[in-house]
Amino acid sequence: MEKRCINSSALTILGNNDVVNNTSSSMKEIPKNAKMPQKENLQFGKTFSPHMLTISYQNNEWKNPKIIPYGNLSISPGSSCLNYGMTCFEGMKAYKSLNGDSSLRLFRPDKNMERLSRSMKRLSLPGYDFDHQELIQCIQKLILLDKDWIPEGEGYSLYLRPNVIAMSDNLGLSNPDSLLLYVVCSPVGPYYKDGFKPVRLLCESKYVRACKGGTGDCKIGGNYAPTMKPAKEAADKGYHQVLWLWNDEVTEVGAMNVFFVFQRKREDGSIYKEIVTPPLTRGDILPGVTRSSIIDLAHRWEGYDMVERDVTMLEVAEAVKDGMLNEAFGAGTAAVVSPIECIQYQGEDLDIPAMGEVTQRAWDELMAIQYGKVEHPWSVEVTTMEE
Amino acid sequence: MEKRCINSSALTILGNNDVVNNTSSSMKEIPKNAKMPQKENLQFGKTFSPHMLTISYQNNEWKNPKIIPYGNLSISPGSSCLNYGMTCFEGMKAYKSLNGDSSLRLFRPDKNMERLSRSMKRLSLPGYDFDHQELIQCIQKLILLDKDWIPEGEGYSLYLRPNVIAMSDNLGLSNPDSLLLYVVCSPVGPYYKDGFKPVRLLCESKYVRACKGGTGDCKIGGNYAPTMKPAKEAADKGYHQVLWLWNDEVTEVGAMNVFFVFQRKREDGSIYKEIVTPPLTRGDILPGVTRSSIIDLAHRWEGYDMVERDVTMLEVAEAVKDGMLNEAFGAGTAAVVSPIECIQYQGEDLDIPAMGEVTQRAWDELMAIQYGKVEHPWSVEVTTMEE
Repeated sequence: MEKRCINSSALTILGNNDVVNNTSSSMKEIPKNAKMPQKENLQFGKTFSPHMLTISYQNNEWKNPKIIPYGNLSISPGSSCLNYGMTCFEGMKAYKSLNGDSSLRLFRPDKNMERLSRSMKRLSLPGYDFDHQELIQCIQKLILLDKDWIPEGEGYSLYLRPNVIAMSDNLGLSNPDSLLLYVVCSPVGPYYKDGFKPVRLLCESKYVRACKGGTGDCKIGGNYAPTMKPAKEAADKGYHQVLWLWNDEVTEVGAMNVFFVFQRKREDGSIYKEIVTPPLTRGDILPGVTRSSIIDLAHRWEGYDMVERDVTMLEVAEAVKDGMLNEAFGAGTAAVVSPIECIQYQGEDLDIPAMGEVTQRAWDELMAIQYGKVEHPWSVEVTTMEE
Repeated sequence: MEKRCINSSALTILGNNDVVNNTSSSMKEIPKNAKMPQKENLQFGKTFSPHMLTISYQNNEWKNPKIIPYGNLSISPGSSCLNYGMTCFEGMKAYKSLNGDSSLRLFRPDKNMERLSRSMKRLSLPGYDFDHQELIQCIQKLILLDKDWIPEGEGYSLYLRPNVIAMSDNLGLSNPDSLLLYVVCSPVGPYYKDGFKPVRLLCESKYVRACKGGTGDCKIGGNYAPTMKPAKEAADKGYHQVLWLWNDEVTEVGAMNVFFVFQRKREDGSIYKEIVTPPLTRGDILPGVTRSSIIDLAHRWEGYDMVERDVTMLEVAEAVKDGMLNEAFGAGTAAVVSPIECIQYQGEDLDIPAMGEVTQRAWDELMAIQYGKVEHPWSVEVTTMEE
């Protein structure tokens, strides 16, 4: 085992009565015999499971992987995470399988680990070259310990939030030498409780989410804070979310990737559908795991042409007016897919047929894989190698 | 007093033996009888004074301004500050005057308060409309309490770091309703201990610090984390800092504003000097307090033309080659001014006469004001209204 790597076999599990070093959890700790709330009452990201995983990076190595009671962290007011936004995170889910074997499953956790490494590298955080499988092992142990907090049913899961924060205590801007990697878990229900609720979007012309040379292609805490004001301004105008543009090019929707489905005619007169999502080439778009999965699935669908390419709002608007835009949707871990029914562009509401066949098919196929209803290499069973 | 405002007269001072609510300070607390290190040994931002100011924002109001022993904060792992970069800060200094009256002074604290409000507003944080004078009053009480930690001498000061962090405990992206505003203090010495050390810069062509529609004109934590990697890459090539460009336009240097001094000829053949700093119009440049002060001072200098306008590296490079670039320097609170002796542009090192008369004059005039050697409205004496 390389020294710099996380060692999952050294993982210690501490109970509520153990002395816990880096938490002062008096107020926040989840009571010992706490039970998960009724699953119908879960609010996204507001309820946490009783345990969390913490791993420190100090003196050039990852050390002390620990599972401890969920509780507050003790953080220096001079830390780089609180002062300079040195944080990056992941979003992933653990599922109770719906194939009758009651196994627990993760969806492509390797993709989350890869992206976490990339984000850390972009922030010049040390330890980005951790062993991905070791961290997945630690996370699996956490999931198994809190398995009673994974609600059952399609759309229900245990949302997992790995977060890496720079702990170095220095107001001088410098590369941090001390980190905390932690994972907290939040039981969540379907994003749309009563079936899909198509969203209305406002094209954002004043604010930019990311630009070439920035960090839009990494999952960095600082990418998100600046989106609150544009989101609020859109909400005040009656729209659910912002459609982010770069000049006129569509980039993302809210905190999701975006897909459009155009109807096209071949030279021989036959009809096909082009599924388009903006490309990763400019570096201003997050390489979403759901995005990548839908692309891979769609490449195998007959009658569809799945393309990653630039798409301008002008093209979208013209297609809407010509009746050639069949559907549009957002894609991300939280909501999986999110149908779009309207985009305001240059003062005009463009209406889009909501919940088309591609949106539905992406949802169905992802659900089947994530909940183990079909065998698929993307669905990884939660086990511990030692047990 | 408006409810939403900070009330400095309600400020409570708690000692080491009091129960302190939102800190778990066992490891980090500064011992009761600690003394400031020898001023020659101070490292920027690594030593902290014994006290800190904390003010909470909850239920739509600022409450409980407190001065407490310096120590770690207790923060939820699900907080918006740790997950979504919802933090913004200020940098300011308290000075021991060098005019013999031993008064303590702040430099334009109103500018820092204004900018903090702007940054909070850009992040859609509530409570951005706090009463600036009330917060300055609280900060002054903190300075007076830790006045023995203000090292004396030109270039020495107590660096003050107000920081606002979003405490809301919600993994769903949303406008935070709970904040902590805190101020920690760090005694610091001159940035350049043995006189000015001119810096060598590398023009950054791959990474961008900020873009139009972003947050480059606000002091937001998330602006800084992405600059570590470019800074490290420049250091690996033997340069001290990055010169940030937008396309070819110069924007900032490292974490400072930038000034150039060109030699120009009038139509009548007479020579004058044009001092140029990039403008705030695009919104990708931080409105620095030092920047604004130098602009104001230079407007009064005879024989100089102080201009805020776009300046491209092509223009800078041509001026260097024609011998028409007299000097260039960075400007910010930490270093005040930082002379530039070389800029690498398109693979070529452009040598610049370092430490010219404008750099020196800006330094001298700012020192005189900041250390109370001259009477000036920008220098504010630290007092408490009640005492």
